[in-house]
Amino acid sequence: NSDKKPAAKKMLRHAVLFKFKDSATPAQVKEVEDAFRKLPSKVKEVKGFEWGTNNSPEGLNQGFTHMFFVSFDSEEGRAAYLPHPEHKAFVKVLEPHLDKVLVIDYWTQE
Amino acid sequence: NSDKKPAAKKMLRHAVLFKFKDSATPAQVKEVEDAFRKLPSKVKEVKGFEWGTNNSPEGLNQGFTHMFFVSFDSEEGRAAYLPHPEHKAFVKVLEPHLDKVLVIDYWTQE
Repeated sequence: NSDKKPAAKKMLRHAVLFKFKDSATPAQVKEVEDAFRKLPSKVKEVKGFEWGTNNSPEGLNQGFTHMFFVSFDSEEGRAAYLPHPEHKAFVKVLEPHLDKVLVIDYWTQE
Repeated sequence: NSDKKPAAKKMLRHAVLFKFKDSATPAQVKEVEDAFRKLPSKVKEVKGFEWGTNNSPEGLNQGFTHMFFVSFDSEEGRAAYLPHPEHKAFVKVLEPHLDKVLVIDYWTQE
């Protein structure tokens, strides 16, 4: 569909979905959101970032409420991010409140 | 992180994950991929489209192998897409080969 999306540089997407524990308070969820939002400024290999909360009318989200969408321009960038101390520090903030997580990564195709 | 992603127009993302049945052949999976790829040219409300297959090293993909990432610029656009005859025709191609699906939609935040 070249009329809608001109050939763009291929990116490595890293989609991360969370379902929080029922016990997680809104303040605790916001703490996790804010901690994730700070990662792109702390890890130079992150080349793009957005996130949001589910508003699908289809009811197929399997309980996941949050998606964070991180972009890299190489697998080396991802390999630097995953074990990065700032990423590990984020996971420590996340873990007490996490019910389940799903991660899928892909190189963009049109 | 204004240094990495300047304020962009908010988009409504529609992330669709598939796990195919073990019985699905590579040709059948490709038929589904190709059918989905044709949707953006058939439904004018689709404002962005990309897809790819999982290559995450984390093993947290819960069996999902494919992600399709559709963008709209309004909830009205999504509301036109979901029941669109072309979308319904695609689902007919998909259904025989689908093991499970996950859909999460969100308005982009930074």
